[in-house]
Amino acid sequence: MAQQERGIKSRNLILRAAAEVFDERGYDSASTTEILERSGLTRGALYHHFPSKEAIAIALLSLHGETVAATTEPVKFQAVIDHTFLFAFGLQRDPLLRACVRLAVEQTSFRAHASTPYEQSGAVVQSLLSQALEQGELLPGIDLAEAADMITGTFTGIQVMSRVQTGREDLPERVCTMWRFLLPGLVHPGLICRLRLTPDPAIAEPPVPAREPVAS
Amino acid sequence: MAQQERGIKSRNLILRAAAEVFDERGYDSASTTEILERSGLTRGALYHHFPSKEAIAIALLSLHGETVAATTEPVKFQAVIDHTFLFAFGLQRDPLLRACVRLAVEQTSFRAHASTPYEQSGAVVQSLLSQALEQGELLPGIDLAEAADMITGTFTGIQVMSRVQTGREDLPERVCTMWRFLLPGLVHPGLICRLRLTPDPAIAEPPVPAREPVAS
Repeated sequence: MAQQERGIKSRNLILRAAAEVFDERGYDSASTTEILERSGLTRGALYHHFPSKEAIAIALLSLHGETVAATTEPVKFQAVIDHTFLFAFGLQRDPLLRACVRLAVEQTSFRAHASTPYEQSGAVVQSLLSQALEQGELLPGIDLAEAADMITGTFTGIQVMSRVQTGREDLPERVCTMWRFLLPGLVHPGLICRLRLTPDPAIAEPPVPAREPVAS
Repeated sequence: MAQQERGIKSRNLILRAAAEVFDERGYDSASTTEILERSGLTRGALYHHFPSKEAIAIALLSLHGETVAATTEPVKFQAVIDHTFLFAFGLQRDPLLRACVRLAVEQTSFRAHASTPYEQSGAVVQSLLSQALEQGELLPGIDLAEAADMITGTFTGIQVMSRVQTGREDLPERVCTMWRFLLPGLVHPGLICRLRLTPDPAIAEPPVPAREPVAS
């Protein structure tokens, strides 16, 4: 294996191990020693890639930001809905996503960076909403940034409640409920019955393989 | 001071000190030693009232549950809206409420009890919604438990984002935005222009004095 390839592989091993540890323990209780043990690498290899625990957490958040959705749906708002279901399934299956969300929700010494995931999610949702706006799907007078914030905030709370009450098992059903309540305040009434408020069958059925971190 | 009165006073001192410590450090990092120092009491007095840190946290959550709203508003849904603004101002000003919310949102060793505040808030909202339903204010087909969960969940996420991004300074404005997006999916269209989506002036202006814990 070429040196560069080995470097990418170790970086990915560190990020995956760190995601698991952050997801399970939260930022403040996570130790680089445990991240090291789970990654199976040497301390030298860890510090070669990341000078600190904070640097690892920042790298994890930047991975989260790489998820940008492109849509070929004729009804553009469907892409907003599908994005939330994809995120819901991601939270059920992917420690990387769960770690990002935990870093964003909890009040830890990492708090200076905690707003990054909300900004990233808000930007993705806003870009999808702007396509819906262009097609005249939204109600008149909707402020895109405000609507994107509302969708991101609502999803945040829904997923916190679902985690607390069912370990995120009922998250997809809660996302469906969320849309039944939100749609009348967002899209033209005539559009509502043309939107699918269930997960895309292509993403709902097979357990998605754990997402491999991409080296920067 | 009679012995019973002194007992109530010490219990309240412990709860207020504990709320501050839980609010600032989270459950796992809070120590009974720090709670003790802030309360100004002896360790004996602390253990007389509460056998453990967990017992203190459970007592705090039960205080939160005592907040039940009664309404004389002619439009009953206004009471639901006012309740969320009251909660928003409470979070800005009252360490007791902030501690309860932090205990409910974060993944700590206290997690077995974390669903209590959601159930309590959900029950208050649902009881207010049922009065609105009786007066025919809600859209047909609304499931009260689902609507109460949606309002509680949305508020949860909105307040997390507001805390992360502005230290909860913009929470009242965010609550206003939340209602502008939620109302069309909840109440009859003709009612919307009769609802006040700003805080009741009586609660918004003067800083409310810190709420005194009530002894059980």
